[in-house]
Amino acid sequence: MYKDMTENQILLLVIKNLKELRKKEFQLLIDELQPYDIANVYKNLPEKHRHKFLTYLTAQQIASLIQELESELQIEIIHKLGIERSSNIMNLMENDDLADLLGNLEVEQIQDFLSTMTADESRTVQSLMKYESDTAGGIMTNRFVWIPKIYTVRDAVDKLKTFAGFAENIYYLYVIDEDKKLVGVVSYRDLLLGDMNDKIEDIMYNRVISVPADLDQEEVARTIERYDFIAVPVTDEENRLLGIVTVDDILDVLIEEANEDIEKLSATGKSIDFQTSALVASYRRLPWLILLLFIGIMSGSIISAFEGTIERVVALTYFMPMIAGMTGNTGTQSLAVVVRGLVSQDIDKYTITRLIGRELGVGIIIGATCGLLIALVAFIWKGSLTLGLVVGSSLFLTLIIGTLAGTLIPLLLYRLKVDPAVASGPLITTINDIFSLLVYFGTASLFIHQLL
Amino acid sequence: MYKDMTENQILLLVIKNLKELRKKEFQLLIDELQPYDIANVYKNLPEKHRHKFLTYLTAQQIASLIQELESELQIEIIHKLGIERSSNIMNLMENDDLADLLGNLEVEQIQDFLSTMTADESRTVQSLMKYESDTAGGIMTNRFVWIPKIYTVRDAVDKLKTFAGFAENIYYLYVIDEDKKLVGVVSYRDLLLGDMNDKIEDIMYNRVISVPADLDQEEVARTIERYDFIAVPVTDEENRLLGIVTVDDILDVLIEEANEDIEKLSATGKSIDFQTSALVASYRRLPWLILLLFIGIMSGSIISAFEGTIERVVALTYFMPMIAGMTGNTGTQSLAVVVRGLVSQDIDKYTITRLIGRELGVGIIIGATCGLLIALVAFIWKGSLTLGLVVGSSLFLTLIIGTLAGTLIPLLLYRLKVDPAVASGPLITTINDIFSLLVYFGTASLFIHQLL
Repeated sequence: MYKDMTENQILLLVIKNLKELRKKEFQLLIDELQPYDIANVYKNLPEKHRHKFLTYLTAQQIASLIQELESELQIEIIHKLGIERSSNIMNLMENDDLADLLGNLEVEQIQDFLSTMTADESRTVQSLMKYESDTAGGIMTNRFVWIPKIYTVRDAVDKLKTFAGFAENIYYLYVIDEDKKLVGVVSYRDLLLGDMNDKIEDIMYNRVISVPADLDQEEVARTIERYDFIAVPVTDEENRLLGIVTVDDILDVLIEEANEDIEKLSATGKSIDFQTSALVASYRRLPWLILLLFIGIMSGSIISAFEGTIERVVALTYFMPMIAGMTGNTGTQSLAVVVRGLVSQDIDKYTITRLIGRELGVGIIIGATCGLLIALVAFIWKGSLTLGLVVGSSLFLTLIIGTLAGTLIPLLLYRLKVDPAVASGPLITTINDIFSLLVYFGTASLFIHQLL
Repeated sequence: MYKDMTENQILLLVIKNLKELRKKEFQLLIDELQPYDIANVYKNLPEKHRHKFLTYLTAQQIASLIQELESELQIEIIHKLGIERSSNIMNLMENDDLADLLGNLEVEQIQDFLSTMTADESRTVQSLMKYESDTAGGIMTNRFVWIPKIYTVRDAVDKLKTFAGFAENIYYLYVIDEDKKLVGVVSYRDLLLGDMNDKIEDIMYNRVISVPADLDQEEVARTIERYDFIAVPVTDEENRLLGIVTVDDILDVLIEEANEDIEKLSATGKSIDFQTSALVASYRRLPWLILLLFIGIMSGSIISAFEGTIERVVALTYFMPMIAGMTGNTGTQSLAVVVRGLVSQDIDKYTITRLIGRELGVGIIIGATCGLLIALVAFIWKGSLTLGLVVGSSLFLTLIIGTLAGTLIPLLLYRLKVDPAVASGPLITTINDIFSLLVYFGTASLFIHQLL
């Protein structure tokens, strides 16, 4: 009955139910909503209704609501609920989300919460909190189902039934041996097709793909993407099963990593979104800009070195911004190709040599085309064949240099184990400014007598 | 037993088995591999072994192998197998992958293949081929399980068993009414916890989230990501169920879309990777570069208009590339923030007004900081307070303009329903070059008498 209602209609109905104290109608409505939708209702709910809203929800519903919210609102809810009710709800949360939430609280508060949890739960959450948040350990959950390899299909189905309400992922069952080592995996599909008396050991898949707990989340994403998995198990050095990473968390990882690449490529600085204040955004953007400012001053000293040339042929300055700009542009293009390529490719010497050769080829083709065009324009505009030749051949050279700089700098950083995306577009552009000015005025100085 | 072998060891063992005609050992090994790994073996296999390799695989194995390969290798296999065996294999492929594969063949070949398929299969594949490849219809599969709402849990489990080997996703069952309209969804979890005699109608979830067939794949990805789904159903205008989109395809969509954003932001042109030839890469990169070249020439004519000013104060040229560069850099930063923000945010008037205000604030803060710094540098370097003031105040103004241009241009494009990422970094940089030259020389001309 609520199927075709818009978000706003739902919000209004929720407020109506809250005002008229109709808890039953309220629950009927909430029951039909997804956690994401409930979170949206909460976000748009006027402050004065939020407390009542929370008292009308079940603990399980609050747990899934919290998991959909940003940390600010999560903490608001924790405060509204008080420590006791919050603890009950934390017991119902996925452990990976819970570890993240606790990570945002103050140390004292964390202690308070951990002390109210069951010993088991508290130990688990603490162990999850010790992994870096961008590793397999940091994004794994331990709400999964494992079975000993001596189980039959019937045993497995029984265990699955008990855990279906609790586990985040019930599509794969991980099989362990006496030493708790991961030895196999069985999918729900296998159970469905197997005979009730089949031994798990006989129907399980042996070559389990797993990831170590300290693996970078980007690598975990790559594994799941390659194998089209819904989840991947996480193990310690001894191949003991620690948890699983599910595909829904991987979707978030992919979005986060792409955003990070773009932030670095544009030298934007960390996580600026539409909500960031002007002061914070400026503070994050300024370090790069100031660095680039000082590199930019170097271009000034190059020009001052060629002051004599410029004073004699002022027309040279006309093409200066264009040449510097074009060199920066090709550099940015090459940079983007290399940075994105490094994300999805395995890199060996052969690949790199071929890539550099290819970009050299691109530089020559692009340089020749644009050089010829600008030579023609300069010749027609200023009527000087020499000026055309100087501008054209400079652009030819600088475009080759720009392309190579955009290729070599990120590769070098990659080799030095620095994230190649640090070589942002603005940095490449600024460095290329300097190269291009040197080449341009150098060439012009060679032909200064013909230019006069 | 093959669990701890490296990729190379597996490859060598495969070749050994092929050479010694040990089909049984070959199958034992292949059985333990994932489709992705089998595809890797095939890619690295010397050409002379490939034909035998294919004859040793079962039709089902070839079907999953093909799905992991790029279209070039797919077509190679089709040719190696001949039309009859290929058709058998195509019948076993996921329909969305098959539609993509056929889309890469020539029309005649497509006709040949379609004619060898069962009428049902051929009709389905043809209907899949009619959707744009970047829409829900283009990435959906029709290997899913649907049940009528009058079924009991027992009926559903029986149907699931029959289809478990065939369906791409057996974790959700979609429920339809007499008119084939989508009315609910039941998860494997619900079946597991339900009683065998429960009616599906009573335990199903009514508020099914579905997407229309012509929805952009990026929007489909957003839906799956928001709701943490493993699959989402695709419906026509009448709410009839057409297919499902699974999360593994969404991972590919996210990677593809992030790459596209970066390509556009860096004006790289479509899909250049490490394998693209220099000629093709140049061809894809040149259109933007040539456009930027001509915009760059405009900056030349601006400078020529201020020739008199430059001739009198050559030192002005020292700061020209730095000012143009810095304006471009802030513009690129703002652009990246806006473009990425537009991907993940819902946009309304309020958000936009606030964003523009925020960026204006950022421009003022950044402009004041950098302007002050460069004024000091210019004053100390050239000993002229006026020059310091001209350079500093110009940078202050151009950084504000640059920030706003980097914000307003993508927003304007978004408003005009053009992809905002088209306003690439290089384009913003080039446009900002022009703004900055006008401001810089304009300011300088105002103070020309003090500068002399």
